[in-house]
This record gives sequence, C-alpha cells and structure tokens, in this order.
Amino acid sequence: MQNIVDSIYQEMRSRTDRGKVANYIPQLACVDPNQFALTVVTPEGKVYSAGCADTLFSIQSISKVFTLTMALGKLGDALWARVGREPSGDPFNSIVQLEHESGIPRNPFINAGAIAIADAIMGHNEPKESLAEILHFVRFVANDESISIDEKVAQSEMMTGSRNASLAHFMASFERLENPVEKVLGTYFHHCSISMTTEQLAKAGLFLVSNGTNQNTGSRVVPEHRARRINSLMLMCGHYDGSGEFAYRVGLPGKSGVGGGILAIAPGKASIAVWSPGLDKIGNSKLGTEALEMLVHETGWSIFGH
Amino acid sequence: MQNIVDSIYQEMRSRTDRGKVANYIPQLACVDPNQFALTVVTPEGKVYSAGCADTLFSIQSISKVFTLTMALGKLGDALWARVGREPSGDPFNSIVQLEHESGIPRNPFINAGAIAIADAIMGHNEPKESLAEILHFVRFVANDESISIDEKVAQSEMMTGSRNASLAHFMASFERLENPVEKVLGTYFHHCSISMTTEQLAKAGLFLVSNGTNQNTGSRVVPEHRARRINSLMLMCGHYDGSGEFAYRVGLPGKSGVGGGILAIAPGKASIAVWSPGLDKIGNSKLGTEALEMLVHETGWSIFGH
Amino acid sequence: MQNIVDSIYQEMRSRTDRGKVANYIPQLACVDPNQFALTVVTPEGKVYSAGCADTLFSIQSISKVFTLTMALGKLGDALWARVGREPSGDPFNSIVQLEHESGIPRNPFINAGAIAIADAIMGHNEPKESLAEILHFVRFVANDESISIDEKVAQSEMMTGSRNASLAHFMASFERLENPVEKVLGTYFHHCSISMTTEQLAKAGLFLVSNGTNQNTGSRVVPEHRARRINSLMLMCGHYDGSGEFAYRVGLPGKSGVGGGILAIAPGKASIAVWSPGLDKIGNSKLGTEALEMLVHETGWSIFGH
Amino acid sequence: MQNIVDSIYQEMRSRTDRGKVANYIPQLACVDPNQFALTVVTPEGKVYSAGCADTLFSIQSISKVFTLTMALGKLGDALWARVGREPSGDPFNSIVQLEHESGIPRNPFINAGAIAIADAIMGHNEPKESLAEILHFVRFVANDESISIDEKVAQSEMMTGSRNASLAHFMASFERLENPVEKVLGTYFHHCSISMTTEQLAKAGLFLVSNGTNQNTGSRVVPEHRARRINSLMLMCGHYDGSGEFAYRVGLPGKSGVGGGILAIAPGKASIAVWSPGLDKIGNSKLGTEALEMLVHETGWSIFGH
Repeated sequence: MQNIVDSIYQEMRSRTDRGKVANYIPQLACVDPNQFALTVVTPEGKVYSAGCADTLFSIQSISKVFTLTMALGKLGDALWARVGREPSGDPFNSIVQLEHESGIPRNPFINAGAIAIADAIMGHNEPKESLAEILHFVRFVANDESISIDEKVAQSEMMTGSRNASLAHFMASFERLENPVEKVLGTYFHHCSISMTTEQLAKAGLFLVSNGTNQNTGSRVVPEHRARRINSLMLMCGHYDGSGEFAYRVGLPGKSGVGGGILAIAPGKASIAVWSPGLDKIGNSKLGTEALEMLVHETGWSIFGH
Repeated sequence: MQNIVDSIYQEMRSRTDRGKVANYIPQLACVDPNQFALTVVTPEGKVYSAGCADTLFSIQSISKVFTLTMALGKLGDALWARVGREPSGDPFNSIVQLEHESGIPRNPFINAGAIAIADAIMGHNEPKESLAEILHFVRFVANDESISIDEKVAQSEMMTGSRNASLAHFMASFERLENPVEKVLGTYFHHCSISMTTEQLAKAGLFLVSNGTNQNTGSRVVPEHRARRINSLMLMCGHYDGSGEFAYRVGLPGKSGVGGGILAIAPGKASIAVWSPGLDKIGNSKLGTEALEMLVHETGWSIFGH
Repeated sequence: MQNIVDSIYQEMRSRTDRGKVANYIPQLACVDPNQFALTVVTPEGKVYSAGCADTLFSIQSISKVFTLTMALGKLGDALWARVGREPSGDPFNSIVQLEHESGIPRNPFINAGAIAIADAIMGHNEPKESLAEILHFVRFVANDESISIDEKVAQSEMMTGSRNASLAHFMASFERLENPVEKVLGTYFHHCSISMTTEQLAKAGLFLVSNGTNQNTGSRVVPEHRARRINSLMLMCGHYDGSGEFAYRVGLPGKSGVGGGILAIAPGKASIAVWSPGLDKIGNSKLGTEALEMLVHETGWSIFGH
Repeated sequence: MQNIVDSIYQEMRSRTDRGKVANYIPQLACVDPNQFALTVVTPEGKVYSAGCADTLFSIQSISKVFTLTMALGKLGDALWARVGREPSGDPFNSIVQLEHESGIPRNPFINAGAIAIADAIMGHNEPKESLAEILHFVRFVANDESISIDEKVAQSEMMTGSRNASLAHFMASFERLENPVEKVLGTYFHHCSISMTTEQLAKAGLFLVSNGTNQNTGSRVVPEHRARRINSLMLMCGHYDGSGEFAYRVGLPGKSGVGGGILAIAPGKASIAVWSPGLDKIGNSKLGTEALEMLVHETGWSIFGH
C-alpha cells in the first residue's frame, strides 16, 4: 500500500496542470498550489501517507459530513423534513432550486442544505456552544484533541459570504430556519473553517469505513444503517454537480471542499484523505480526484465492482 | 436465500397500498396491480424466485441499461459528447434542462438521454435492423433466445408518446440526432417494449455483478472498468429524481421502468429483478423498492457497507 | 409626412451595420440584406412609402396578429383558457415556461402560443380549409386579393421546424391541442409564410389604428375594446424578450417577424410597416426598429406621451 | 368627471369580494380592507376624488417610480448597466432570473431592481441622507411638504424582509452593489414606507401626464423623452407578472404597491391614484384594478385606442 501511495504522489508531483486555487476567500487564495498530500488509513488504523500529510488545510465543505452525522444523531429521520436527499444537478451555491421547492434544500451537502443542517444542530444554543460541540465531535471521531478552527479563515468567509447570506435569508423567508440568520451563518462559516491534515481527516472518516464503528479506537459513532446512508449521500451529492463524474471515475463515496481536500470512503477497506489546493471548473480538487482515480485503479476498491 | 426471497414475497402479498399502475399507456394501464415477482440470481447462476417469476412484463426503461451498454461498446468514450453522466434532479421527461444545456441530455437514463442513445446505436441503420441488434444483445446477455418485443405496447407508446416526440424534436433542433426523429422514436419505443420475466431480467444483469463477465455462461460482455461505470450510472441516475432516495434506502445500483420492474445489482453477490406494477409518485415500483429494501436489510448487500 | 419617410429611408440606406439575416430557414437566408422599405398609412388611407415598398417579403410572425384576431373572433374570451397574456421574458422558442405552466403558452405571440392559436382557429377543419380562411381574412383586412402564401418558404420551414415541432408535441402531451400535431404545424408554418409588401402590410393594420374599423374601406373588423386589447398584447409581447426594449425605444404596439418586417400601430395616427431583413440578437429587424424610433421621434406618436 | 368618479366609488363600495390584505408585514396586515379612495387629477391640477382620499396609506412599491426617476436623473443611461428593462414574467420577489442573469435584475420595478436603484441613488451617502433626498423629491413632484415616512412600517419591513435581504446579498455576491447590503436595504425599506393619500399621489404623477412637466406648478421634472420611457416601463413592468393583465384590462401605464395603491397615468389626460387594501393573487389591488378598468371604460383613456 505504501508503494501505491508513493507512486501516486510521484505522479502528482510531476503534474503541471494543477487546477485553480479558490480565489473567493482571500485566506484560501494565498495557499501554495504545489502542495499535495495523500493518506490512506485502514480500519485497524494503519496509516499510509505521502506528501505534506501533516500540513493543516481548511477542510471547508468536508465538515458537512460531520455536521450531517451530528444532525442525524440529534434529530434522526425528522431531519429529512428540513432538507432533501436528492442530487441537485446544480452548482454548490445555486438558489434556483430553493425557490422552486419553497426553501427546502435538495440535500445536506449543497451550501443551502449545510446551512439548514447547522441550524438544526444549534437547537437554541449560541454559535459558540454549537461550535464547541462540533469541534468536540470532530476531535472524537478523529481521535485527536488538537483539531481546531482557523479563525482567520472564518473571518474571511464571513466578510465574503454574500451568496451564503443570500441562501440563508432566502430560507428564512420561508421560515425554514429556527435561529437568526446571522447566528446560523456564524456557525456555518466557522465549522467550514476547521483545519486538518490529511492524516487527521482520513482517521476521522474511519467510522464510515466500518459500518459506523471506529475499529481502531473501538468506539461506535453511528448505527450501521446510518453509516451506510451517510456514505450513500456522499456518493450521490458529495461533489455538487460533479457527483456523477466522481462516481463514474472514482466510484467511492466522497466529499470535497473548496480548500482542495477530499475525504473518500472505501467500505471495509480504507478511509482516504487527499489534498491539493487547485480546483477543477466545478470546484473539486483536480489532482485530488485524479489521485483517487489512480488509487482505485490500483486497488480495485470501487464500490461498483468487487 | 430462498427463505429470504419467500418471506419478502409473503410480506409483499399482504400489502394493500401497492401504488398506482402507470396509466399513460393503455397497454400498461390494464395490468393487474396485485402481481408480484422477485428473482435473485447468484454469479454462478443459481436462481431464487418467488411470485409470478415467469410472467412477462414490459421492462420499459430498464432496457436503457442494455442500450447504454451497446452504445458504449460501439462508440466508447465518444458517447459522452452526446449525453452527460450527471443526475438530473428532474423528472424523467423534463425538457427544461435540455434547453439550458443546448440539447445535450444530462444522462443516459432520462428519456431524452435514452433517445440520444438509441440514435447513437442506430448508426445509419433502419429501426428494424437496430431493433434486431438490440434484441440480439438482450438475448445474449440473458442467455435466452425467447425474449421479444410486445408489438402492442410499442404501438400504444407510439400513439401516446407526445412528450418523447417533443424531446426528440427538441434535440433535433440542436442537431443532436443523426437519424430522422421518427426513426429514432421508432427504435426507442420498441426497445422499451421488450417483455421479460423477472428470471430472464435477473439473468440479463449477471454481467454487471461480476465485473463485466457472465460467470454462468462464461462470456465476457464488457471490460471490467465499463461494468463498474454502468453500475455507477445506474446508482446515480437509475431512478430519475428518486435516485437519491433509492440509493439511501436500498443502496444498490438499480434501474426502474414504468412497467413496475426494477433491475438491481449487488456487485459480486447477485443480480436481482423485482416486479410489481404499482408505482410511487416519482414513477418507480412501490413494492419493488420496498422488496429490495428488505432484501438488502436481510443480506447486508448494500454497496455502502461491507 | 413624405419628407419624414424619405429622410428615414436616406438615413437607413447609409447604414453599414444592418444586423444578420435569419439563417435557419434556407429561403430566408438568401434574401438581400441591403433592402429596406417603409410605409406609413393614415386612417383615411393616405400612403407614404420609401424604398422597395412593393417588394414581397415573408411576414412570418407578423401573421400572428391576424390569427390572434381571428381566434378572438371565433372563441372570444374562451381563448384565454388556452393561452396566457403575459410577457414571457424568454426567447421566442423557449420551452422552459411551457413545462412550468403545464403546456399553456404564456402569450399568443411566442411560437408555442401561436401554435395554440392555429389549433384554435382550425376547429375540426383541415389545414387547407383553415389556410384558405386565414388568407381570406388577411386579404379582407388589407383590402387586397393578391396576397398569398409562399409555398417554398412553407416547405422550407416544415423541413427545418424541429423546435416548433417540439413545442407542439409538448403541448399535445398535456392534451392542449385539439388537432393532430402535424396538421397544426402545417397550418402554422403556412400562415407564417404569407408574403406581403410593406404597403399591403401597413394597410392590413389599419383596423387597429381606428378602434377596430378600417376607416378607409369603412368595414368594422373587430369591436373597439378588442382592437385595444390586441394593441396591448402587441406592445407587451410583440417582440419576444425584446418587447421591453421596443416599448422603451419606440413606444408603439408592434409585431416583428424573422423575415425582417415589423408592423407598428400608432392609434388614431397611422399604421406603419417597415422591412429590413437584418436582425438584431433577439431576432427583431435591426434597421426596422431604428427606423421606427426615428419616425416616432419626428412625429411624437409614442403612446406614452401626448 | 366627478360623476364618473362617484359612480365608481358607489360601485366599489358594494363589492364584497375585496381581495386579501397583505399579511407579511404586520403594519399592513391590520389595515381595514373596506377602505377605498380614488382621485383623478387633470394636467392643470383639477382634482376629482371619492372615498377616503385624504387617508394616508403606505405607497410601498409605487415609490419605485420616484426612485427610478431620480436614478435616471443622476446616472442617465448608465443606469441600464445595473438593471434591465424587460418584463420578468416572474413574481415580484423571484430570485431565479437573478441567478440566470448574473445578479442583474430584469427591470427597475421588481424588488431586486428597486434595490439596485436604491443603491444607485445612494452614491456614497448614508441611508439618512439618501432618504432625505428621496423625500425631498417626492414632496417636490407632489408639491406637498407634508409627505413623510411611516417609521413603524419601515421597522416592520426591516424585521420581516428576509426575501429582500436574500435578493440584496445575492446581488452583492455578484458585486452588483456599491454600498453595504444593510444600508441599501435600510434605504429601500424606508422609501417603500412613504405614506401618501390618493390626492397626494395623483398629484405626484402629474409630470408623467404632461411629457415631463407638472403643468399645474409649471416645473419641469424630467425631459420629454424620459417621461415617455418611465411610462413605458410602468406599462411593461409595473404590475409584476400581472403587467400583461393590467395592460390588457386597463391599458394605462401604472404602478402598484402591496399597500393596495395604484398610480396610473393617462398621457395628456390625467394622473390617477386609487387605493383599496385588498390584493389579488399576484399582489395588486383587486378593487383598484377594477376601478381603473371602469374609469378607462367610461373615459376611453386607454393608450391603445384614441
């Protein structure tokens, strides 16, 4: 496995077309596009890394996997009255569908959906408490108390987050949010600003590899059926309007973030985190996707074969 | 396995809310909604059936799995210039996306996409020759020479197929079709009118269970990577705007037809065909979906766990 | 008045940016773009022309004014159950709105609406009879028995009319048409292929200038309130998604055709026909619009002033 | 004229189906639906009123006529880079078009357009200064220094204005606003909260009746061509997706507000203000529209006849 990981790293190092770093948030725009990291963790916790696997990056929308997991824990199936579970066929920040469907987002991974999830998690708590809870959960699943929020990124997002503000106010106009828009956005922008290394992130995905239990730490995070469902949502909706492409090329449940990270789950086999800041046109990590494609090709881990 | 299949059949027999039989085609509208059949076939060809597993039904859109397979064989990746591979988020017969994307259908399983696929298969042949070819292929993968087209259903579709005619003319207006609209529709309506039993259909899906090879007959149908990709397309787009729901509840690549059939693939495990004519609101078999949900629950075959 | 008309003609003769001749119909594509004609007819029938005012051109969508008038005569307000009367905000051949509003076109002047009007006029007649009736009506309002259909243009449209075929089949799929699609399209394509000179066309518009009566011939064509309403529909919807622009710049009810003609009505003042084959981006005559802008500037005929 | 006005008032008094008072703003929801006022003012300033013509009501979107006039005075045609001038075919608060057209509103009278206009008027001023300027302008055209803003309504709108906040943030995400969203909304909500009587409002419309000059006071407000263009925009877009209906039934340029008021302009004839709080489904005053329909029927003032 280490050989495979190393060879992917070598291949990716040589690539010149690395996509474009997200430029809408100043703090993300200044990240060096030549960085690359890949970590594969097996169910028992064996770690295979290459590249800068201990460099922190902004996980951005990958955090939505963790908030979805928390929201399902808190509300169970009642969550589905607030957000759908169909692929949207639209870009991550589209508002069109929201108007046609009366303010209910199509799925938990488009921005509007994740804002609805943040609202659901909050209950009647303040953003501070909610964020403490989210951080606590991410640290728990990753088994790493050092994980934290990059406050500069969060501030940067707050100031440039007009589109997300628009989505939140839009949902509020349909009375779909229980908390004030500003507080929900505060929570949302902050949980998107969690920083992790590929090693931390891959470990945090382990519970989805083994039917809900982190075999390495021995802790059950979610029931078996829920782990499967989260994986199905990642596959169907985890890459916005590039989800079909990712399923076609990689064939693993995965969730991308505009920071250039991707978390991918090979059930029973491994949790994989990859990071390369350059994005493709849809907003998913260009080299990250290609690295996963190579990995699946080498390992045969696609969920569509056996 | 036979016990599981039998118990599902018993459960489904007792259901009173069976959905609504498709009424837009007279020939489908008069099918008895109380029928139910389930067949599970293992890679080596062991067959487990319950219900009327030797009753012929109209496979309708399930035929799109076979025409997609043929088109990929003929055109390879060049096919993707004619049709996309993203879930549409829209009903099976929506034309909105087609206008926004200049006549290129979002994926091969919505009606517009399947019409484009029919056109691609035809080359410059007449519908008759193309249909002979399609039938030949379906008989080959099912290893059953008796499979044929129900001409009455095809005629019935031709006369009521205004929406599909509209989709085809729309694509033609963007010069996306190589053959005359009438001929393409003739081919399309006829291949949708293939009749099969659940036993025939489950056998026809075997090549998708075993990485492209029908282990039972020993014939390779498609290369390994293509089998995976077809499975991924089935999962992402096989149930129209209910694909997310199906992935969430069942967790297997599947393709439904308005005749009430569903073909589902559990890679490495089994090919499954289920039939119950009553449909849910989106147009997928109501009891068929529930039966598959039970089956996956009993067997743990979801591709999202292990 | 003749001086004004002449000076506009001189100005337009010198223009080099004349727009682009419609190229989707072969018969229209080969028209010489350097032609220009302008005719102003007063209520009493005084004619002021410049340019090739006796050259026949294809009136295309301008014919929709006459078919709308006929349909209102036949069905009265019952017509509005089949077609709306709001501007669409979409291009002339958009199908999106049609899906959102269940096959009922937004207004009588977009293509879908005019197809619905053709169907309404037909009753249970054959296209031949309906076309005879339409021609009879146009000859009557223009007081000119020589007006006829250009069969070559009609054939040309039939063969290239995929988008209109798509619209018609789409409406048929919602059971919005009483006649078979082919017959309705036959009627529609033929009435769009009526050839007229600007002089004939301007005369044909006289009944809309004088509250429903052609003062020149003395014949009442429609009641007063209906003439006003037809004018309002022309203003609101007569130039597709350029209607607002036309109202803003010209300020007269008008209807354009892709043949490069425009019929404009200055209530109480004059009926105006202009023809120049080059179109702007939206599909309205470029110089025709500019000529009308000049005319209104010189005469003060805008309905928005006094 | 007084007889006509009185008879309309009598007729409207007897109506029982009065539409529904806007309920999304508490301050508007508690207005008595049985009120009705109609004022007709001739170019020379003769006033004909019936009903509670000296009762103040919230003019709401009618204020957009005045802010558009101001913005055209400040920016001239440069304004049209920020907002279009086509009817939208969508409800007043739709966001769909805004996404398809990159944050540029279709016209100045839908909410998004009016927010863009408010931003344009502000320059780099604070809301307070901008509002003073707007009030000053409205008092000037109405020749009435007593006109003011209802602060309670403004506060009420601020607190319930999620949809407008969404629209503004959406435009901001395309960098279409020069001022901070909160300030633009502050200006917008306040100018919508101007209170006027029908008498004040009808007088304020006089400059649009007489080609830009208030003949009564003798002051020129806008050049002739601009008065016409504002009238054309009112006709095309003044009643949202009911503009076609209003043009068809009434045939005068008009602007409605959810407070139940309508300002209508009969060029050369009269400025008309009507108020009845109950709205039709689209959000325009039900009895107000019917009263105008009666008035035009009696007077023949439709701009589509003569």
